[in-house]
Amino acid sequence: MADDKKLTRRDEDFAAWYNEVVLRSELADYSPVKGSMVIRPWGYGIWENMQRALDDMFKETGHENAYFPLLIPMSFIEREKEHIEGFAPELAVVTQAGGKVLEEPYVIRPTSETIIYSMYAKWVQSYRDLPVLMNQWANVVRWEMRTRLFLRTSEFLWQEGHTAHATAEEAEEETLLILGIYRKFMEDWIGMPPITGLKSESEKFAGAVRSYCCEALMQDNKALQAGTSHFLGQNFAKQFDLKFQTEAGEEEYAWNTSWGVSTRLVGGMVMTHGDDDGLVVPPRLAPVQVVIVPILRGDETGPLRDKVDEVAARLKAAGVRVKIDARENLSPGAKYYEWERKGVPFRLEIGPRDLESGQVALARRLTPEGEKRKLFLPEGQAIAELPARLESFQTELKLAALARREANTVRGVKSVDALQEAFDGGAGFVYTGWNGDAAVEETIKERMKATIRALPGEEFRSGETPDTCVSGNGSSVAEVAWARAY
Amino acid sequence: MADDKKLTRRDEDFAAWYNEVVLRSELADYSPVKGSMVIRPWGYGIWENMQRALDDMFKETGHENAYFPLLIPMSFIEREKEHIEGFAPELAVVTQAGGKVLEEPYVIRPTSETIIYSMYAKWVQSYRDLPVLMNQWANVVRWEMRTRLFLRTSEFLWQEGHTAHATAEEAEEETLLILGIYRKFMEDWIGMPPITGLKSESEKFAGAVRSYCCEALMQDNKALQAGTSHFLGQNFAKQFDLKFQTEAGEEEYAWNTSWGVSTRLVGGMVMTHGDDDGLVVPPRLAPVQVVIVPILRGDETGPLRDKVDEVAARLKAAGVRVKIDARENLSPGAKYYEWERKGVPFRLEIGPRDLESGQVALARRLTPEGEKRKLFLPEGQAIAELPARLESFQTELKLAALARREANTVRGVKSVDALQEAFDGGAGFVYTGWNGDAAVEETIKERMKATIRALPGEEFRSGETPDTCVSGNGSSVAEVAWARAY
Repeated sequence: MADDKKLTRRDEDFAAWYNEVVLRSELADYSPVKGSMVIRPWGYGIWENMQRALDDMFKETGHENAYFPLLIPMSFIEREKEHIEGFAPELAVVTQAGGKVLEEPYVIRPTSETIIYSMYAKWVQSYRDLPVLMNQWANVVRWEMRTRLFLRTSEFLWQEGHTAHATAEEAEEETLLILGIYRKFMEDWIGMPPITGLKSESEKFAGAVRSYCCEALMQDNKALQAGTSHFLGQNFAKQFDLKFQTEAGEEEYAWNTSWGVSTRLVGGMVMTHGDDDGLVVPPRLAPVQVVIVPILRGDETGPLRDKVDEVAARLKAAGVRVKIDARENLSPGAKYYEWERKGVPFRLEIGPRDLESGQVALARRLTPEGEKRKLFLPEGQAIAELPARLESFQTELKLAALARREANTVRGVKSVDALQEAFDGGAGFVYTGWNGDAAVEETIKERMKATIRALPGEEFRSGETPDTCVSGNGSSVAEVAWARAY
Repeated sequence: MADDKKLTRRDEDFAAWYNEVVLRSELADYSPVKGSMVIRPWGYGIWENMQRALDDMFKETGHENAYFPLLIPMSFIEREKEHIEGFAPELAVVTQAGGKVLEEPYVIRPTSETIIYSMYAKWVQSYRDLPVLMNQWANVVRWEMRTRLFLRTSEFLWQEGHTAHATAEEAEEETLLILGIYRKFMEDWIGMPPITGLKSESEKFAGAVRSYCCEALMQDNKALQAGTSHFLGQNFAKQFDLKFQTEAGEEEYAWNTSWGVSTRLVGGMVMTHGDDDGLVVPPRLAPVQVVIVPILRGDETGPLRDKVDEVAARLKAAGVRVKIDARENLSPGAKYYEWERKGVPFRLEIGPRDLESGQVALARRLTPEGEKRKLFLPEGQAIAELPARLESFQTELKLAALARREANTVRGVKSVDALQEAFDGGAGFVYTGWNGDAAVEETIKERMKATIRALPGEEFRSGETPDTCVSGNGSSVAEVAWARAY
């Protein structure tokens, strides 16, 4: 169908723009199930490309995939005290199955630490069985009150890694290894460079000793928690009797980590690169990197179709994901509009005149300043250059996002009033000193809806941290990055 | 851990052998969740290779992946009468979520026709929106009373394709296209050649007009339903108001198909190729195709490790999935034993003497008759030949399974007594005539536990069908293949 209504502009209503882009670019749709969405082929294709890239990185670093049950006995999830406190309000509970009321209800996994560590306890006897480095790609359910497509849904898809180690040091190293993988993936595939660091106690994962995170800045200057990596210490190992015999013959509890990213990343991609014309998909994630639109006129279709097929085949051979849009009931203009809204990086137009001249028209989804919207290139040159053009588009998206993050970051803020002022002025991340007291977080959250997104890691610290806490009470123990967040 | 206890022999107790192989080759393990299993990395790696191959074939034929909700409103699943009758006894029901009792309970999907066609109804308006060709990779839950690892579990992983078409003919064509893909995949990837054909009314999918199936013969001569492809007619379209405007401007219900294969295929692979030493994994599915065991002696490890790394790199460059087993606390013999039990197709042994002579020892998981268990080959030759050796191993597995199926098939059987005799004599598939009456199926099922596995498709018919029904009552309307089944 033709759907040529303009989108709401981002500066009018960012939330409305977001929903329209997701729906009208056919990434996802609402479903009849409260808070759950349907991921449509265009959205799922992007998720598949994300999965493939992450999965390769996990495997390169020695992790293996496995699959654990969807349902978790209620008594398991209750065993780790902080864990159940954190997840209890969001659980979906199966109370009947096979026509009978169950003696013990099952919860649908909101995350799988409990069921997975109960299995590791069965498999691990000795230090020789460690480390265990597993990941699973799975669906989870967390019954959310207020949902947003991709960002917060009652069911979502994710990967959850769970590892067991002989020492705390090795587990901590694993936590940071994964944090680095997440960061690299977000930078180089999504073009969404996050800051990374530690969560404060009040924001950490329910059951973790320490939570590391990736926080990315969206175009509305709200932060998105895009991935987390948790050092679990021996909290779960003790509850699930995950012990091993050390080389010295003693018995010890194993040290665990868990880490995950989810389909939320698709939402992050939308809010990082989309514009008022719709989605912009980074080439490495795009299910279609180049769409070819033949400009058909009358009965000249024969040789033109052959040419289009030939160009597509040559691009495919060069490793480019290409699609020919040969639909007959749609004008070229309507097709351009649709693929722009879907965010396909490049469009090739080939018409009868081009056939004679050996030229093609190449249009880029985003036009760099000072460049023309359409380039007319000799066919061979266009084909030869497209792989490199895709890569440089990818890089430009990352650099633009990085520049935007930096332009919207304020550092060295010394008081609550100045913090308020920064947010009133539209700041994204605001860096201050902090005395480590949760009461400060509580006050600031109430006053300006901002939270500590991270205690930034070394490479993200400003080098100009105030000595005192932003609250004015006491000296600072850590620099922190505040933001309003999804 | 060393685990060198012998497996139960297949001819002693096939069911016990199967369970031991699955557990001790670490394909899967029992879980604390009734009827659910854990798929361990070795089993999941095989499933991933199955997924990749099938997914490529689906995409080549124009299908796209999507993802639909896990939970289905109870009222949806109840809408198609035969569908709910078939699935009601196996449903797991969520009655509480987010701390509240739900007004309408949800069922965990046992299959997704209802939720998916309700969405198609939203997306399809005109014949131009057809066909819709989607697939999802997902988990489903069917609360089974008697479960078997991989073969019948309360939760399993599968793919389910769902399509919508403008005409019955096109939908029927799709059903058969997929049946052909399944057959090709089972033959060429699993080496498990099935017979294909139509299910009888009493064995078809709940809600389908016609169900096509792939039925493979296991080593115990029981049949395994390994994949199904259903022509759903307009049954679901009518319940979910999936209508479209035809080119002539009229309104019509769409025609649907659905089709699926599951992790059950891993069980089929085990029972097709395994032997008394354990698993045999076909090379195309093996997560590790060649394991290299360095024979370390004393302090000669340096140059040997370099050589092993070099051989591994050269094999990897040739597209071979290779693993070096460099564990220090295990003898080479214990390693051989473990990898044989796990079914790795080839093992390369490299020791200090080989380093001098430029030779390696190559052992195959199954030794063809008249060949030696181990071949001593010049290193370069072993590497160069391995890709072809893997392919011929793959082919031999298929041919052996095909020969076994044929050797255990009896055709042209004319009476119930002769049918009984055939099964008493250990037959697998037995072909007879049939009058189309379900009462005949009932009688034979009660007497000898055999069912009609399929009305074989043309290429699987014997050409020697009796004119009369096996029951002696009336003439035959179709040749049928009987078997005892999983």
